[in-house]
Amino acid sequence: MSEERKKRVALIASKGTLDMAYPPLILATTAIAMDMEAAIFFTFYGLNIIRKGRNERLQVAPLANPAMPMPVPNLVGAIPGMTAMATTMMKGMMKKAHVATLGDLLEVAVEGGVRLIGCQMTLDVFGIAAGDLIDGVEVGGAATFLSYAADADVTLFV
Amino acid sequence: MSEERKKRVALIASKGTLDMAYPPLILATTAIAMDMEAAIFFTFYGLNIIRKGRNERLQVAPLANPAMPMPVPNLVGAIPGMTAMATTMMKGMMKKAHVATLGDLLEVAVEGGVRLIGCQMTLDVFGIAAGDLIDGVEVGGAATFLSYAADADVTLFV
Amino acid sequence: MSEERKKRVALIASKGTLDMAYPPLILATTAIAMDMEAAIFFTFYGLNIIRKGRNERLQVAPLANPAMPMPVPNLVGAIPGMTAMATTMMKGMMKKAHVATLGDLLEVAVEGGVRLIGCQMTLDVFGIAAGDLIDGVEVGGAATFLSYAADADVTLFV
Repeated sequence: MSEERKKRVALIASKGTLDMAYPPLILATTAIAMDMEAAIFFTFYGLNIIRKGRNERLQVAPLANPAMPMPVPNLVGAIPGMTAMATTMMKGMMKKAHVATLGDLLEVAVEGGVRLIGCQMTLDVFGIAAGDLIDGVEVGGAATFLSYAADADVTLFV
Repeated sequence: MSEERKKRVALIASKGTLDMAYPPLILATTAIAMDMEAAIFFTFYGLNIIRKGRNERLQVAPLANPAMPMPVPNLVGAIPGMTAMATTMMKGMMKKAHVATLGDLLEVAVEGGVRLIGCQMTLDVFGIAAGDLIDGVEVGGAATFLSYAADADVTLFV
Repeated sequence: MSEERKKRVALIASKGTLDMAYPPLILATTAIAMDMEAAIFFTFYGLNIIRKGRNERLQVAPLANPAMPMPVPNLVGAIPGMTAMATTMMKGMMKKAHVATLGDLLEVAVEGGVRLIGCQMTLDVFGIAAGDLIDGVEVGGAATFLSYAADADVTLFV
């Protein structure tokens, strides 16, 4: 009774690019630091964020995004090697601004008690074994997410 | 009084690709199965999901998404025919994992009472007639969505 | 006591393309018109929406989106000039349907009291000065957003 319920943040991570892997991890770890509770449901390409040894290999494509800080013509962006180059550039910009790596953020999330849920259907569709996911991850479905999110104060699909 | 209000899920579907058409339909149909109520507001490219005879023609582009399960160099992904090939591959993976088709999910949504709202502004901008939308769809605007979402427990923009 | 709390809409704008800049601005200005309160947190590419003189230069790429109303083969979409052409076409379609420009919507948002928050980390990573943002914008972080969103009724990540 004197114990107030914590604010709750329920996130879905559906993208597997270097840039879009950041928002759910930053929001969840910030929530924890603010004494809220948080969960992330990793689905579709977002599942790559919690595959063992994968998060440091996520890339960003210099294509079809005219809003990139280092825009290149699409024909140039399609040249082999440009995805790797754009990824290296973005990682450099992140590092220079002292932004934590995805691996660091994941570690903080696990240690801080963020609930990490890998999507069962995505594992099935992409033929990935649950054992390929990092430690501390549970496996569940849309119902697992909705049960948690139904009592959340902030719900976001990234 | 003894009757508790159902939990409510308010979704926006803004993408018209095969992969990103799934999350709103899976979440809405799962919500219904969990005795929650749900609505989906179809806007921008997402409107294609509820255009007559369109959902089975949605595609996935093998481009600018280095996180795809079958990544190809962007220069290869741009070759004519590669979008069709990636679409066929993804549909095959879905089928093998016994995932329902978009058409099946839409049918379940309509029968289960999910409120489907087509965006009036999108119809106007893209020059689509309301009659081109599947049966059981109403037409509305951002205000229609916000009126519903203001009392929702889960709100997600896909 | 007789004063009821207004419904609150908390949005994140993470995309910097012409098409995806619309949803947060339309939702926020509609919310204000419905006597709700609203805030938008501009992060990653979305920060371009509130950079001085930038919103009228946002583009849409005719690539990797097979759901576009004017789809072109990806190989054609990669040809220099096609991004500009697709942007011109979409702006023409918007204008013909009497949709306000991004600049008009931003003005309505500022005048209507929508809280506009530029992401500090994005400024740091992309090397943008706070002075490059339009007037009426405050600068903050994920914690600023979450503090506001924790008491919101509608939360969406665009």
